[in-house]
Amino acid sequence: MNHLFTIKDLSTDEIHHILTQADRFKNGETWLPSDLVFVSNLFFEASTRTKMSFEIAEKRLGLQVIPFETTTSSTVKGETLYDTVKTLESIGVKLVVIRHPEDSYFSQLVDGINIPILNGGDGSGNHPTQCLLDLLTIKEEFQQFENLTVSIIGDLRHSRVARSNAEALTKLGANVIFSGPEDWFDEEYNRHGPFLPVDEAVMESDVVMLLRIQHERHKETAHLTQEEYHQQYGLTIERYNRMKQGSIVMHPAPVNRDVEIASELIEAPRSRIFKQMENGVYIRMSVIKRALHKGEEGWIG
Amino acid sequence: MNHLFTIKDLSTDEIHHILTQADRFKNGETWLPSDLVFVSNLFFEASTRTKMSFEIAEKRLGLQVIPFETTTSSTVKGETLYDTVKTLESIGVKLVVIRHPEDSYFSQLVDGINIPILNGGDGSGNHPTQCLLDLLTIKEEFQQFENLTVSIIGDLRHSRVARSNAEALTKLGANVIFSGPEDWFDEEYNRHGPFLPVDEAVMESDVVMLLRIQHERHKETAHLTQEEYHQQYGLTIERYNRMKQGSIVMHPAPVNRDVEIASELIEAPRSRIFKQMENGVYIRMSVIKRALHKGEEGWIG
Amino acid sequence: MNHLFTIKDLSTDEIHHILTQADRFKNGETWLPSDLVFVSNLFFEASTRTKMSFEIAEKRLGLQVIPFETTTSSTVKGETLYDTVKTLESIGVKLVVIRHPEDSYFSQLVDGINIPILNGGDGSGNHPTQCLLDLLTIKEEFQQFENLTVSIIGDLRHSRVARSNAEALTKLGANVIFSGPEDWFDEEYNRHGPFLPVDEAVMESDVVMLLRIQHERHKETAHLTQEEYHQQYGLTIERYNRMKQGSIVMHPAPVNRDVEIASELIEAPRSRIFKQMENGVYIRMSVIKRALHKGEEGWIG
Repeated sequence: MNHLFTIKDLSTDEIHHILTQADRFKNGETWLPSDLVFVSNLFFEASTRTKMSFEIAEKRLGLQVIPFETTTSSTVKGETLYDTVKTLESIGVKLVVIRHPEDSYFSQLVDGINIPILNGGDGSGNHPTQCLLDLLTIKEEFQQFENLTVSIIGDLRHSRVARSNAEALTKLGANVIFSGPEDWFDEEYNRHGPFLPVDEAVMESDVVMLLRIQHERHKETAHLTQEEYHQQYGLTIERYNRMKQGSIVMHPAPVNRDVEIASELIEAPRSRIFKQMENGVYIRMSVIKRALHKGEEGWIG
Repeated sequence: MNHLFTIKDLSTDEIHHILTQADRFKNGETWLPSDLVFVSNLFFEASTRTKMSFEIAEKRLGLQVIPFETTTSSTVKGETLYDTVKTLESIGVKLVVIRHPEDSYFSQLVDGINIPILNGGDGSGNHPTQCLLDLLTIKEEFQQFENLTVSIIGDLRHSRVARSNAEALTKLGANVIFSGPEDWFDEEYNRHGPFLPVDEAVMESDVVMLLRIQHERHKETAHLTQEEYHQQYGLTIERYNRMKQGSIVMHPAPVNRDVEIASELIEAPRSRIFKQMENGVYIRMSVIKRALHKGEEGWIG
Repeated sequence: MNHLFTIKDLSTDEIHHILTQADRFKNGETWLPSDLVFVSNLFFEASTRTKMSFEIAEKRLGLQVIPFETTTSSTVKGETLYDTVKTLESIGVKLVVIRHPEDSYFSQLVDGINIPILNGGDGSGNHPTQCLLDLLTIKEEFQQFENLTVSIIGDLRHSRVARSNAEALTKLGANVIFSGPEDWFDEEYNRHGPFLPVDEAVMESDVVMLLRIQHERHKETAHLTQEEYHQQYGLTIERYNRMKQGSIVMHPAPVNRDVEIASELIEAPRSRIFKQMENGVYIRMSVIKRALHKGEEGWIG
């Protein structure tokens, strides 16, 4: 079963295959399953871009999307996630995408569910398609990952994006630097790279990857106004102007304007923020093909 | 107009036709209307399986589903149900499925609405497609209904499933037994069959049909903890082991695990719970075809 | 960019083109873009008919509708409307329809967004497709607008329908009369036509256009019960019986029965209320074609 739960589950070969297939989709390659295939996107947390991006990917692949509404579904009646997914399997759904506030929600699904599950984000855990679209965006820019310096800056403790990206980037040969408020650093990152002051991190990086402050996840944003955060840890115009030649800025979005990044920079020349979203569609097409592909040969032709 | 409001409205011939057509759909028969046909599912109560099952049935028949969101619709502005349905008719919707908390909501729609309405559940009243999918599941197992013994156990008073099934099963020749907490029994069931203790009912039945405790409908669940309910009235492993040879277990779902039924039994050999859901899609295809079919000849070819 | 923000932005020629194309769609003309085209309907306010009408129009044109749920979207996380729309553009959405409670919300979108935006209603501002469907309904009835007398009656101050219609109808040569509670009149209407007592307005009009009392917009409905409002300003059966020969009644719906209009009159011979809804689909097809059409020649063939 080609589930996609975490980026850790993928070998570097698998990652490269997914990026290659995504790139081919971006260049016009098509792939359509021969049957009517029903899929459903179960988003138990707010999302615009991830959910809609999956939906567009699904429709580009000719899949039939069956809407699942968390506010009116039987989970309101206390149904377990397992029973909900098993229900969808029973009525003919062939693949589900799930975002859920609980870390590793998928561990309760592995046994018993016979359709592939793609993780669209679990609590503060993982967000593998976000990681993969970040990798595609970096690869498009620099062709390879070896010896690139990538700084990940901001709310490291609560970020599933940071966790997945740190893991994948070091595995692929990049050097990772962490920065932001020190009490948001997490010791688990020590094995991936050093924690540096923001100004240093920004100046040394090929890729400045900003993290969203998840106001909805923690109220203890800490002693700082948004303006203070921006001045101390955000990408200000001054810091942007000191970035290396050829370097780029990334952010998983939604952006808190003038907090993580100055509003004027969101569409600035180095910014790849909207390019990341565009790439997300092709990554999702790629992992869906990987999950649904049948037959003896490899899923990427 | 081929509305489907209650199971009572159907003759035994009609019921058998619907089951036959559902069975044909299950075995690969297809039917597609020649035009672009718009349908809409108006669910004013929480639902996963019924709504999604209808949606899959509709898409298998090539229909275009127009989403209707109860939380953002004009019913929020106080529009009557009649005016909402008349609106859908005016903009070109050719069939609606409605679930509504009000008993017999459809009585206000019969006059004036010129498109077929399929009842997806009305208050504590009816749920005809649930009944039909239960019948299909029983027929698949035993080929006929005559002389079968079916026990319906649990929250009889609030269950639209119990009401429809008791009616239909006796009409089709089965013997029906009722069981569960005595204060949930309703005198109207007396004409269909006797009320027996749970242990007896379970042992005598070809079909043990458990009802969901509708926590969301009544708070007076009564003096019993969930564990006590399970021991006194639920399908425990002990009771399951005393079931007749060849007998099966059914439940309309969503299941309250370890209340109506022991968690381990949900996918046990005798359980048809997920099979029921699978059959629901074919039943809904069948009643939709019945509602939309045009022409002189019968709707089932 | 063929946005549609307000009726004022359209020349009388453009209005006539849109009505002509809508009429052709109503008579069976088809138009399908050659590619897979994704569109999305962003409704930040309650709506049944406008949203579903757009959705049917989109599907009749072969477009792929990507659901956007305001309750679970990133706007909940504080994302700006600009960033949300830019996101949709980035992931491949080619047209958006927006309803938003803020007057002139589109002014923040004009710069930077590269896909057409159709206004589905902005605060108490505009509702151009409602206006256009009203015009189509009037034109179908009377073939032209010159010298027609149209009275607009009711909650003038809060009505985006009144504003757009008064503007368009006078531009097209009709005479407009206003009526209703005097403290709901707005001086800006003086340039379009006189304010008259209800009985006089109803008797003199070819078109009696009733406005919805927007309970959800203002609580100061003022000193009147619904019954009192109906007697003093509503279309009672007595007033209906005094209407001119050949005259018609319109209402943008949803209707407050027995407030703006007597319940029995909603489907009375002079009423065009459900016809308006039917026409809405064709108008929306027309403005969508106008927005998506490419090539050197005019959008209407």
